[in-house]
Amino acid sequence: MKTPNISEVVVKRLPIYLRFLADLESKNVLTVSSQDLGLRLNLNPAQIRKDLACFGEFGKKGIGYDVPFLIQNIRHILNLHRRMPIVLIGAGNLGRALCNYNMYFQEQMNICALFDVMPDKVGQNINQLEVMPMDMLKEIVTRDNVQIGIIAVPAGEAQNVANHLVDAGVKGILNFAPSILRVPSAIRVHYADFTTELQSLAFYISEAEKEG
Amino acid sequence: MKTPNISEVVVKRLPIYLRFLADLESKNVLTVSSQDLGLRLNLNPAQIRKDLACFGEFGKKGIGYDVPFLIQNIRHILNLHRRMPIVLIGAGNLGRALCNYNMYFQEQMNICALFDVMPDKVGQNINQLEVMPMDMLKEIVTRDNVQIGIIAVPAGEAQNVANHLVDAGVKGILNFAPSILRVPSAIRVHYADFTTELQSLAFYISEAEKEG
Repeated sequence: MKTPNISEVVVKRLPIYLRFLADLESKNVLTVSSQDLGLRLNLNPAQIRKDLACFGEFGKKGIGYDVPFLIQNIRHILNLHRRMPIVLIGAGNLGRALCNYNMYFQEQMNICALFDVMPDKVGQNINQLEVMPMDMLKEIVTRDNVQIGIIAVPAGEAQNVANHLVDAGVKGILNFAPSILRVPSAIRVHYADFTTELQSLAFYISEAEKEG
Repeated sequence: MKTPNISEVVVKRLPIYLRFLADLESKNVLTVSSQDLGLRLNLNPAQIRKDLACFGEFGKKGIGYDVPFLIQNIRHILNLHRRMPIVLIGAGNLGRALCNYNMYFQEQMNICALFDVMPDKVGQNINQLEVMPMDMLKEIVTRDNVQIGIIAVPAGEAQNVANHLVDAGVKGILNFAPSILRVPSAIRVHYADFTTELQSLAFYISEAEKEG
């Protein structure tokens, strides 16, 4: 069943809730209030209650949310129970950093293969992944039913790599390169753009100074 | 003057508009419609018009937005005309990647100093920045009036580094480590968490499959 009518901002907040809840669970915290969630995540508690109410009744008045139950439900909503292997293109510093983070990814969602356009990178071993040449991309994507490609190459190469990924059959792209991609409308592109976070952070710091 | 009452989601979309508009400007595109912005950014055109209307009348009916004018205004709203130097803690793969991206940052907002907790990293030169020891952090933050610190260290070290940054006097932290930080309420923390983007991307791919 298709999940009805959830706004993109809510979908993007669910993983943030999930991370925080997982942190609580690892510390054996079993209930949490929307106030505490809001305080720790810089979000309005009423907004959090509204977000979670899109999917069902998870909270109990005066008690808060049951942490393991909420984790289980958010994972279900996000389809995280489903295996979703990822290919990563780019074995430079960023690609290496992403491979090192691989263990933090959800069990069902991690980087299964690594590629680079530069012949001198091919064959290198990075965190148990061997760098493969681009002409093997389509074969691997088909064989492992890969849905997502991560682009971690310089801006000038990103569109070319995106074309390869689309041709290989991925359905979504996470682009770390500071460039806007043109892809067919059926392909979803998300931008992992830390200048966005930096600029909004700068905005809030400036506003706080004006205030006080 | 404090900017009145803008929701966090709008503040976080402004840098995304800005990046796309800068891309258009670099291609000498001088006007753009909310439809075209929406199509390229996976956003609802009505939402874009509403976002931008928070700050003033930027669009002309039937013509669209004047690209250079809108860039100038968004930069002004985000206070990007103001100099905002950044310190980066962590000279590993991710830190190196961030230093290499430094040239893509806005002129007024870039990494001015790089630190690491490991003595063997100190003194190394990465993209024209020399890795400094942590005990120089406070001096540099004070000298250069640094407001923002970026954390690019392993999860287990992140809280310790955050404590150092707060003690040194930064007002905001961008945390790349997959861990939740505890800081005083006056300090703003943003999380640069690509698992968030990956999980929301996976959600949309699964939903599209259910649909089609």
